[in-house]
Amino acid sequence: MASPPTAGARPDDVRRHNRAALLRRLHVDGPCTRAALATELGLNRSTIKTLVDGLTDAGLVAEQVPTRRAGAGRPSLLVVPRATAVVVLAVDVGVEQLTVATVGIGGDVLGRRSWVLERGRVHPVDVVDRVTEARRRLADELGVDAVAVGVSVPGTVRRADGQVHEAPNLHWTDVPLGEQLSRVLRLPVQVGNDADLGGLAEHTRGAARNTADALYLSADVGVGGGVISGGVLLRGTGGYVGELGHMVVRPDGRQCYCGCRGCWETEVGEDAVRRALSLPGDADRAAIVAELRSLADDAELARHRLRGVADWLALGLANAVNLLAPELVVLGGLLAALPPSVVAEVEEVVRRRSMVARASGHLRVATAALGGEGPLLGAAELAFEPVLATV
Amino acid sequence: MASPPTAGARPDDVRRHNRAALLRRLHVDGPCTRAALATELGLNRSTIKTLVDGLTDAGLVAEQVPTRRAGAGRPSLLVVPRATAVVVLAVDVGVEQLTVATVGIGGDVLGRRSWVLERGRVHPVDVVDRVTEARRRLADELGVDAVAVGVSVPGTVRRADGQVHEAPNLHWTDVPLGEQLSRVLRLPVQVGNDADLGGLAEHTRGAARNTADALYLSADVGVGGGVISGGVLLRGTGGYVGELGHMVVRPDGRQCYCGCRGCWETEVGEDAVRRALSLPGDADRAAIVAELRSLADDAELARHRLRGVADWLALGLANAVNLLAPELVVLGGLLAALPPSVVAEVEEVVRRRSMVARASGHLRVATAALGGEGPLLGAAELAFEPVLATV
Repeated sequence: MASPPTAGARPDDVRRHNRAALLRRLHVDGPCTRAALATELGLNRSTIKTLVDGLTDAGLVAEQVPTRRAGAGRPSLLVVPRATAVVVLAVDVGVEQLTVATVGIGGDVLGRRSWVLERGRVHPVDVVDRVTEARRRLADELGVDAVAVGVSVPGTVRRADGQVHEAPNLHWTDVPLGEQLSRVLRLPVQVGNDADLGGLAEHTRGAARNTADALYLSADVGVGGGVISGGVLLRGTGGYVGELGHMVVRPDGRQCYCGCRGCWETEVGEDAVRRALSLPGDADRAAIVAELRSLADDAELARHRLRGVADWLALGLANAVNLLAPELVVLGGLLAALPPSVVAEVEEVVRRRSMVARASGHLRVATAALGGEGPLLGAAELAFEPVLATV
Repeated sequence: MASPPTAGARPDDVRRHNRAALLRRLHVDGPCTRAALATELGLNRSTIKTLVDGLTDAGLVAEQVPTRRAGAGRPSLLVVPRATAVVVLAVDVGVEQLTVATVGIGGDVLGRRSWVLERGRVHPVDVVDRVTEARRRLADELGVDAVAVGVSVPGTVRRADGQVHEAPNLHWTDVPLGEQLSRVLRLPVQVGNDADLGGLAEHTRGAARNTADALYLSADVGVGGGVISGGVLLRGTGGYVGELGHMVVRPDGRQCYCGCRGCWETEVGEDAVRRALSLPGDADRAAIVAELRSLADDAELARHRLRGVADWLALGLANAVNLLAPELVVLGGLLAALPPSVVAEVEEVVRRRSMVARASGHLRVATAALGGEGPLLGAAELAFEPVLATV
């Protein structure tokens, strides 16, 4: 059900709301004519004109003649967001790599710096130092400094202040990363869980675009996810939603570091995929992905070798689908490299085993469209949301 | 994260929004002074005056001298919703009983009719007939006819049109109940799943009141639930969210009618509780509840006899908590009668086994406050929501 109103609104809120909605529309879906904006936002042309004039005066958008003309007559001007008018810093703290990028309105990456990390051995202080350095260099390159920062971390994060409660694969516990970064950078900093942000990015610009109810599941060393319900990325208490990896799917399964047995992470995570493919324990991400890709052309062999992973993947997905009733499941991280035959089989099993999928008749399982860029782009969106609502 | 704006708003929307917010405040939280309304809704006193005057003219509220005076001086008038100004019909189709009630603004039940049903043998046509009859009699009693209808059904329901996809314990499949009722009653009809509506009621007026993120789990013959996230009851694709009962918690467990093994429903539902208590297979709901209540004073015996149910309850809850990060779990239906020692033990295990609960430090497990009235009161709320937004 739609959220019933609980707080009052003032006339001035309408103007701010409409300005934010228009800017967000341009940021997410790109350039658009005034006429189409009026239709999409349900506002009249004069209101749109006032809003666009205001945004133009503020330097946030420009009106341009479209490069491709449709039909005869004078072409309608396009309202185009100016990418460099508002720039945010997106940070992806991975297990093997640290990436810092500048992202402009419209979502394009305008510049980036990366560092390869000794697997799981990056210290928070080094992250702060490198982000500080990257911010300076990227600002010099672009001639524009960032106004906000979004950070993706492979761990459990308290959204309110960016406290990293536990990031087991970085060996971090209770790291006040948000506070440390905002003190040094003197910018607003938001920190999120990598899988949650991957889901946000797929919802904004990837496979789950325009999908109201979607589940994003990402497996790397850890397994995590993000839940989109009614068009919104869910946050639970403290923003801790989406520790999907620790759903127990196999009560008599392998011991997980969290203390339980048979967590989804132990059954479909990187280690499980490595075992299924009989790869050595030190095979890195690239080697696993290469092996998965090599199975793409032999459906039967792929299904045979990945049987266990596919079974537990399907069981866990059916559970989550019964609970959340998404119309789409997006597989990210290592799971985005699963052979198509295995993805199809998982989809079929989830459809069959889920009461909800059987009832609704709708459920697709797809692989992520943004590949490894998801958490970085999601971190940018995290930073953009409050900025676009108030700029 | 908060939902970013996606649609435009017009100045006239503000008045409607504020009127709906004020009426909803009075409906949910009861009588209130103008001054307190101004504070709570964040609106100035003159706006509140205009809104209250409008609602008074429409006969929806009245201003009264409070019965209990606080302090000296002239008491502030209370804005009181007039219960009979808008009345809805709430219908609870249970496995053993059909209840129809009139509910007024403020949520009080103003009248009711009930029929005992032959267990699981009620025909949809009989439901329509009895609701029609009850509507007439209740309207005569009250002198006011209902303006909308909300219906609770123990099954999988498509919210858009009230199609009951599957209600196994009623032996219903693909029953267009919403359409049938609205044709005969000539009123807007909304149909929802009983556990979902129990959750809505507990959120609006029960144990989860003022809780932004809560999970409601109800076990009767079937097991179902409702998810409150960010203050809103989630709906998935077609409104099918919350088939929690078919989350597989024990892959090698008992066969469920849905085709899977070890569904939560088979491990913690009515049959499982009956088995745990060594009650005969035909022991009815009242007998089971009586036996559960008799264990309240012997914590050790209670834990011993309900060990299996408690274990699978805790495992499933830890899974759902990891996925959704609620701060509160509310146990409804038969589970509301669990001995306090067992509820405390389940809470402790879920806290320990859930990454999210460990990280947030917040998780309570409580029993439902509204008892068996939850689905009926939730059905009333379902009917009220669109009505209060437009009346």
